[in-house]
Amino acid sequence: MSPWTSAVGTPQLARLLGSSGGRPAAAPAVPGARRVPAYRSLADGVRLLVLEGRVPVAARLPAERELATALGVSRTTVAAAYEALRAEGFLESRRGAGSWTAVPAGSPLPTRGLHPLPPEAAGSVIDLGCAALPAPEPWLTRAMRGALEELAPYARTHGDYPAGLPVLRQALADRYTARGVPTRPEQIMVTTGAMGAVAAICRLLVRPGERVAVDSPSYANVLQLMREAGARLVPVAMADGLAGWDIPAWQQALRAAAPRMAYVIADYHNPTGALADEEQRRRLAGAARAAGSVLVADETMAELSLDGPVGPDVPRSPDVPRSADGPGSADGADGTGYAARPRPVAAFDPGGSTVITLGSASKAFWAGLRIGWVRAAPDVIRSLVAARAYADLGSPVVDQVAVAWLLRGGGWEEAVALRRAQARENRDALVAAVRRHLPSWEFAVPSGGLTLWARTGGLSGSRIAEAGERLGVRVPSGPRFGVDGAYEGFVRLPFTVAGAVAEEAAVRLAAAADLVASGAGAEAEGPRTYVA
Amino acid sequence: MSPWTSAVGTPQLARLLGSSGGRPAAAPAVPGARRVPAYRSLADGVRLLVLEGRVPVAARLPAERELATALGVSRTTVAAAYEALRAEGFLESRRGAGSWTAVPAGSPLPTRGLHPLPPEAAGSVIDLGCAALPAPEPWLTRAMRGALEELAPYARTHGDYPAGLPVLRQALADRYTARGVPTRPEQIMVTTGAMGAVAAICRLLVRPGERVAVDSPSYANVLQLMREAGARLVPVAMADGLAGWDIPAWQQALRAAAPRMAYVIADYHNPTGALADEEQRRRLAGAARAAGSVLVADETMAELSLDGPVGPDVPRSPDVPRSADGPGSADGADGTGYAARPRPVAAFDPGGSTVITLGSASKAFWAGLRIGWVRAAPDVIRSLVAARAYADLGSPVVDQVAVAWLLRGGGWEEAVALRRAQARENRDALVAAVRRHLPSWEFAVPSGGLTLWARTGGLSGSRIAEAGERLGVRVPSGPRFGVDGAYEGFVRLPFTVAGAVAEEAAVRLAAAADLVASGAGAEAEGPRTYVA
Repeated sequence: MSPWTSAVGTPQLARLLGSSGGRPAAAPAVPGARRVPAYRSLADGVRLLVLEGRVPVAARLPAERELATALGVSRTTVAAAYEALRAEGFLESRRGAGSWTAVPAGSPLPTRGLHPLPPEAAGSVIDLGCAALPAPEPWLTRAMRGALEELAPYARTHGDYPAGLPVLRQALADRYTARGVPTRPEQIMVTTGAMGAVAAICRLLVRPGERVAVDSPSYANVLQLMREAGARLVPVAMADGLAGWDIPAWQQALRAAAPRMAYVIADYHNPTGALADEEQRRRLAGAARAAGSVLVADETMAELSLDGPVGPDVPRSPDVPRSADGPGSADGADGTGYAARPRPVAAFDPGGSTVITLGSASKAFWAGLRIGWVRAAPDVIRSLVAARAYADLGSPVVDQVAVAWLLRGGGWEEAVALRRAQARENRDALVAAVRRHLPSWEFAVPSGGLTLWARTGGLSGSRIAEAGERLGVRVPSGPRFGVDGAYEGFVRLPFTVAGAVAEEAAVRLAAAADLVASGAGAEAEGPRTYVA
Repeated sequence: MSPWTSAVGTPQLARLLGSSGGRPAAAPAVPGARRVPAYRSLADGVRLLVLEGRVPVAARLPAERELATALGVSRTTVAAAYEALRAEGFLESRRGAGSWTAVPAGSPLPTRGLHPLPPEAAGSVIDLGCAALPAPEPWLTRAMRGALEELAPYARTHGDYPAGLPVLRQALADRYTARGVPTRPEQIMVTTGAMGAVAAICRLLVRPGERVAVDSPSYANVLQLMREAGARLVPVAMADGLAGWDIPAWQQALRAAAPRMAYVIADYHNPTGALADEEQRRRLAGAARAAGSVLVADETMAELSLDGPVGPDVPRSPDVPRSADGPGSADGADGTGYAARPRPVAAFDPGGSTVITLGSASKAFWAGLRIGWVRAAPDVIRSLVAARAYADLGSPVVDQVAVAWLLRGGGWEEAVALRRAQARENRDALVAAVRRHLPSWEFAVPSGGLTLWARTGGLSGSRIAEAGERLGVRVPSGPRFGVDGAYEGFVRLPFTVAGAVAEEAAVRLAAAADLVASGAGAEAEGPRTYVA
């Protein structure tokens, strides 16, 4: 065994296979599909798990006999599946050492989180892997020029600011205050991207075995980070998987599990794009407080309202009386579209000790700047900063100066408006193209955010992702956003392409769906390349 | 219990107290010290552990009876100690919920890793907490201007480069090649600082309970990161704690523990400043290979040779015959001082699969740039990149362009030369001042790096750190660099101040040492402030 080898347990693999359709007994009945032998179905399931990074490469698989018992199939079936995987390059074996996962020579290594292709490697592939857009120029260049002019006093220091530059903490605090949540700089910690913020919170709160309640589906990379931190994820399904929050289910989950932490994306949810209304926010915060849970509200997408100042048409729960706050957020007006939107989740935490808010410049501005932040009570911020040094000494100083420069009148609003316009154009092009070429796919058109969550007409999202990879379009399948393999029948499409490219993306996805529906699957077709 | 509360186990606390001198039976006999009552000694020990972040704030302490049994003292002693801690603000209790650690209102929260004070908060305090220097201007400004000119093509991308910008990977690979370790860009991953590199490697290799062999002492923040990752640290003591590596001890530890990973700082060790010679490198790499361990060589300090091109006078182990490679590194000459120095640890890994090298721009250039890197075999780099997305989507793009610009003829060598000159001046001033004011402190003058590791003349380094905090000088105590509280009799002093400030730092440290030696300790003196 090399020191690089890990292992996947038998129950874990059986659970993952069940969800991926690789478990022979649970193979999905696709109309018109060929009858697939059990060993082939099992081999396909393992291959998909490896290709999607849900089982890592170099993970030792269970012994044949053990897996056969767990799946309720014959040992011959497992042996044949392993043999097929070996022949295809997805498994390596050595006598006495067992078998471990691999990818065929020359294949890219699957990522365990979501990542776009590096620009230099994308070639003719249409990459819908990640919801990241180009920088909203000229604002990036202007901000960097502004930062350069203000750099001198920082250059005279050691450059190590564990809580963030005072000027940026102040600018972010002012922005929360303007949004109706009075905030002091001591309530802000600057982090290295929003993932740095999630990691900091997990370091403090999530011990191995700790329960964390999450939306289901939720953002793939955060789920993966929490899994790696040892969290036991408690999924709370979005209402019908598409439209919004099931508050009674959340209340029940928080009461029953009393998790140390709950994680929600109330402002343009990733992947569904849903927006929680004020009453839902109030009740989520109240349920978390009652359960003694910390409610982490991820506002990474919060700036990306795409449908004008009035905000999206999310129906309020009819059974909940309007609170004494009245329409609340509708009477301010700051020209940013915030005024007409629900107030931040933190506005519904009067004590200030239940809600922690995350934000980031990555989606609203550019992911090449690694700037995120946390807003919380001052003593929570002090704890987060104290626990930071050994993981991440601080965030990039020049990026911090640049974001502060933008926020202090340098053009943040204009840059975000540009970003919204890009995302809106992309969304509309993608929606039209998918409706044209994939009429059986179902989705709600989101009023904000950067992603469309599409039900793939009864086909496996994992198989569509695999087929798409060979047909020149990369999409992440639904289970990356679920817990224990939920949402096999979905893919996530980001608002990153427009016009003819969006059209071509839908054409390739339709071809991939056809391949999967015909049952031809991976083994029928060699790699093909397209020129975009 | 708040969700923010953690717990410290009884055996863990007893072990930590034993090392801090807080365990009554093991109280150090300081000549001329007052006799300290047992409860006071225990309370002091807990207070020091809290102040140094070695026991976190809001950690629940064991029940009095349990701790009394573990320490072999009476329950009355523990009760009196807890009472004293409560009176001083270091403990809070609630009936039925137990007692948990705290800091007095208004005190700064202790950090669990090493951090400098934020510049705006340092005031008149001389901060020797961290080995970080100001930017070597004008090179930072020039590099940022250069980066701005080259930014346009990157701004047109999504900005998310999990392996790093190709231009920087190439520049770093070229630099290793020039140092005698042929390297291709696929062998480089750019990380967010060196801590990002350590974190990436730990994500891949360190499961809870995994053994990791480390130099003892070693870099505090890396030890803490590994502890948090669940590693069982296997300390291998430096030869006599000061001068260098005990290779037979390393061979024995690797053979006996067969750890998955070993971590060494062979190039200007932190904290001792030692430099491993080529034979030591060869034998370390060989022992790691034989044990099936990955050897992580941290080169964060490697550029900081302070004593001219010939390099330091580290004696070669006399019992080891010179290898067929001959003098090896002595015959090249590139004007950077590299040629005369031992070759990188990676040069002694012919198969290329045992050694992983870390580097960083933080110490050689500026910590405000968050750029580190890993050099390893291409398949290891692929694994590290695949495991990255959910933790850290990529490193700051502008910082990457700036470092690449510097390395490609923009002035890296000149900037590092300036940095070396600063560090050399600071080292010489500090050494002279400590010799003058603290003649009983022992240390080896390092030929490189940024830190002095000083034996504090039989006094507790933790108590000196505590007294120093009140006397206007911050130093980290030895146990932060040890495993299980080793090195109580040491402090680490970084090369960050010169001239009159170095002198004043030594004066304040001497006052702190006097306070500790007199047994006056914390309770005799209120806070005092100095004006530097």
